[in-house]
Amino acid sequence: MPVHGGMLHLETAGDGQVVDLTEAIRSVVRTSGAERGVAIVFARGSTVAVTTMEYEPGAVADLTDLLERLVPRERSWAHNARTGDTNAHAHARAALIGPSESVPIVDGELLLGTWQQVVLVDFDDRPRQREVTVQVLV
Amino acid sequence: MPVHGGMLHLETAGDGQVVDLTEAIRSVVRTSGAERGVAIVFARGSTVAVTTMEYEPGAVADLTDLLERLVPRERSWAHNARTGDTNAHAHARAALIGPSESVPIVDGELLLGTWQQVVLVDFDDRPRQREVTVQVLV
Amino acid sequence: MPVHGGMLHLETAGDGQVVDLTEAIRSVVRTSGAERGVAIVFARGSTVAVTTMEYEPGAVADLTDLLERLVPRERSWAHNARTGDTNAHAHARAALIGPSESVPIVDGELLLGTWQQVVLVDFDDRPRQREVTVQVLV
Repeated sequence: MPVHGGMLHLETAGDGQVVDLTEAIRSVVRTSGAERGVAIVFARGSTVAVTTMEYEPGAVADLTDLLERLVPRERSWAHNARTGDTNAHAHARAALIGPSESVPIVDGELLLGTWQQVVLVDFDDRPRQREVTVQVLV
Repeated sequence: MPVHGGMLHLETAGDGQVVDLTEAIRSVVRTSGAERGVAIVFARGSTVAVTTMEYEPGAVADLTDLLERLVPRERSWAHNARTGDTNAHAHARAALIGPSESVPIVDGELLLGTWQQVVLVDFDDRPRQREVTVQVLV
Repeated sequence: MPVHGGMLHLETAGDGQVVDLTEAIRSVVRTSGAERGVAIVFARGSTVAVTTMEYEPGAVADLTDLLERLVPRERSWAHNARTGDTNAHAHARAALIGPSESVPIVDGELLLGTWQQVVLVDFDDRPRQREVTVQVLV
């Protein structure tokens, strides 16, 4: 069967925490034995996103600050007003960045840049248990 | 053949209308008979985008307001000045969010979060007919 | 084998240059002989992104201006302070837009809209050599 799957389970602190998924994805790719293909990474939930970045403390802090400036937690949010929730900013940030990315596999390795990691960003305003699906298509 | 395809045709009101595609995508997945794989969703056009979110009136209004604040319709836009169009803001918003997302299929079902729907956002400034491609890779 | 791959090598000017990848992707699709499938496009590096847009000088200038306004080069960036780099804005912009998109192939052609091109945006603050992977899944 051409689809090999892995499910990552993680606990996050929420509040914009950035988690480096790269090693866990590499592990799924190695287990699949795929030499050439694509690893499709998807985060389950409407307050969490997947992208790539240099996982370096400065760049992580910059992304957090940027999103707080562009999509501030403290605003008049309709979602919070309607539902009593306090995480409307997390919904908006997650929709902006999106839940999935696709990373090529060449010679059995993820073809990322030297300073490029695949990350999950958990925007929710409380600790969460998260599921990330990694599917290897060959 | 490992690719099963479906094409969704929809009419939108434009102006940032958010359309929940989830049930239509589920229908394509069911028709494909896929037990495990990926559904790749792509919206055709340069003023329309695909992402996931909680399809709830408050969150929908929040996303619309946020994009109007970050990428306002009324600005000095070079695209409008050059072409006589009035939808430059729609182009910029669509490029920011992007036209495609990939959603895992496990046990024949889309592996979305409980409050996570796949949506199309039509940023154009008039009603449009839209095509969304759903491809099931198994 | 169901994965056909192509690697695009390009030289960019950096500083937000937008490069139209569409013809090069079409060439990979034609070489693959695929009639139906998906072309997955991925840019290597943490200061570069892939999206779709109307590749028209006005829309290109608008996207550049928008990102400079939302994610300005000249700010107090932690990445620059920590590393001595000058491209923290490029990292943040690239993470926001993301490195990958998936484009359907139907009847041997990319199913893009009439005014929709697949573009790379190089946000780095200097000229770069870039690699873009195009994988055709059928």
